[in-house]
Amino acid sequence: MSLCVIAAGGTFDKHYDEIAGKLVFRDSVLPGVIERSRITLPVRLEALPLLDSLDMVDADRQRIRDACANALETMIVIIHGTDTMQQTAEVLGRAALGKTIVLTGAMVPYEIAQSDALFNFGFATGVAQTLPPGVYVAMNGQVFGWDAVRKDRSRGVFERKSME
Amino acid sequence: MSLCVIAAGGTFDKHYDEIAGKLVFRDSVLPGVIERSRITLPVRLEALPLLDSLDMVDADRQRIRDACANALETMIVIIHGTDTMQQTAEVLGRAALGKTIVLTGAMVPYEIAQSDALFNFGFATGVAQTLPPGVYVAMNGQVFGWDAVRKDRSRGVFERKSME
Amino acid sequence: MSLCVIAAGGTFDKHYDEIAGKLVFRDSVLPGVIERSRITLPVRLEALPLLDSLDMVDADRQRIRDACANALETMIVIIHGTDTMQQTAEVLGRAALGKTIVLTGAMVPYEIAQSDALFNFGFATGVAQTLPPGVYVAMNGQVFGWDAVRKDRSRGVFERKSME
Amino acid sequence: MSLCVIAAGGTFDKHYDEIAGKLVFRDSVLPGVIERSRITLPVRLEALPLLDSLDMVDADRQRIRDACANALETMIVIIHGTDTMQQTAEVLGRAALGKTIVLTGAMVPYEIAQSDALFNFGFATGVAQTLPPGVYVAMNGQVFGWDAVRKDRSRGVFERKSME
Repeated sequence: MSLCVIAAGGTFDKHYDEIAGKLVFRDSVLPGVIERSRITLPVRLEALPLLDSLDMVDADRQRIRDACANALETMIVIIHGTDTMQQTAEVLGRAALGKTIVLTGAMVPYEIAQSDALFNFGFATGVAQTLPPGVYVAMNGQVFGWDAVRKDRSRGVFERKSME
Repeated sequence: MSLCVIAAGGTFDKHYDEIAGKLVFRDSVLPGVIERSRITLPVRLEALPLLDSLDMVDADRQRIRDACANALETMIVIIHGTDTMQQTAEVLGRAALGKTIVLTGAMVPYEIAQSDALFNFGFATGVAQTLPPGVYVAMNGQVFGWDAVRKDRSRGVFERKSME
Repeated sequence: MSLCVIAAGGTFDKHYDEIAGKLVFRDSVLPGVIERSRITLPVRLEALPLLDSLDMVDADRQRIRDACANALETMIVIIHGTDTMQQTAEVLGRAALGKTIVLTGAMVPYEIAQSDALFNFGFATGVAQTLPPGVYVAMNGQVFGWDAVRKDRSRGVFERKSME
Repeated sequence: MSLCVIAAGGTFDKHYDEIAGKLVFRDSVLPGVIERSRITLPVRLEALPLLDSLDMVDADRQRIRDACANALETMIVIIHGTDTMQQTAEVLGRAALGKTIVLTGAMVPYEIAQSDALFNFGFATGVAQTLPPGVYVAMNGQVFGWDAVRKDRSRGVFERKSME
């Protein structure tokens, strides 16, 4: 039994560039996060291009789908931007890969005070081991099915999408 | 659906006392940890006496068992010292309370650099929502049944206990 | 003997807004920074509008000059953005207020990992007590006279300005 | 002009050992602290044995005195335990080395939340450049002469010693 962690960018992994004075991507923080978590389960980290999820196009979501499809592991945690997390979840959900795939991210970058990143990574790592195959979004200490979640951007929280 | 978090002490919740120059208990860090985690699920925090788990006696474990028994919630996360976590898990396991009870803690206090506390809290919060009723230890990014876990103190990790 | 700290904004005091996804000003971090520093000297914090120093206009620098002129203290530390710190220093230098005024700031916000903010605040607080009256920029662990400093933006460091 | 930093131990440099469950010395945090401070002044770090200052004996203070005497730099910052900082300061003060020597330390280890270590290091680095030759204790945002300082252990602060 082993876990695949896919780094796909998002706020979780943003870094402050002190020359430019803004948040950018650089080396992923995930190797340090995984070490810090003291997981004794085998973990393989697959680093995809780190992207702001608002900048993601179809090809980026296909790349994530391919990474999931090709992974030998049946438990996958994806670190992803929150703004279009549900779109990527939908692509993965429709692909019906037969694995437990959990998308998570953060409202505040890992490197900034009061970040939720480490909590979310722990949460996702837990439910990836305990949920049946399927595609899930894990944010705000809750699990949502890929077709039943939306982000309320004005409040910055994920919530169950009311069925129409 | 709501979650009960029981604060029972342990390394997770130790605080550096700058006058005494050592790690002690003071107010629990858990209210801040829960806020930081941005959980939108209802959470009730029950603060028991904070103890080093090496100092726990039978009465302390009974108090934890009573808190679990009396909780209206069916999902419970207990923050506990790691050194006798399996003993408390055994008391709770034998009590057969019909709830999902997850014990976790930390190898490094929440307030110290590179702490695993927030990861462990996220992990436990996730599996408490997804595991069937029973008593579990969640440490090192893994879930262990209450009767199948031991701490290897020399390496500081939890592992599956080999059956005799 | 007492110290006046003037909060004028800059990277030091920027806060990550998790809804907007960017760095903004909110309540100043300085009350917490001063408490953390355990200064036993009397300190008065004067909070001016917090500004990105690239957005400062003449009126903003006059406001800072007035705050310095009106302060009863003769030792003043100003927390300021780095991009136009030397311009404000020049306004204060030409005003010849007869006080020891030290401008500092940060390359990385106080709330972000590996920030230099607390070091710089300590450095400035020290030299404000030991330098003769005058206006100084204290960055990169060095003291510069107000008329002899420039920021090398490409490298993100302050250096002595070569005299022409 | 360059700075010598002498690492001699104390709370500043204590590290949490997760196997032993207590604070111990390991590699000094000072290389990371110096890098974080973005000092552009040349800095040489001299690592002496890291000791709890309550464990220091005469030979330990002589070693620190020798390191100061042998340093080519005329500005020296010593990171030292707070409990016997004034004794070491006295040894250095009586040695009359003709250099500016500033002792500092921390009430809370650098690696623990709300530590004063980085502030104190910045403060000491500043006054080491601006004070005349002599031996000083720099704690609580104040400078004390080596023969006029005491630590009030019950309150955990340094204060001016009343002359008898």
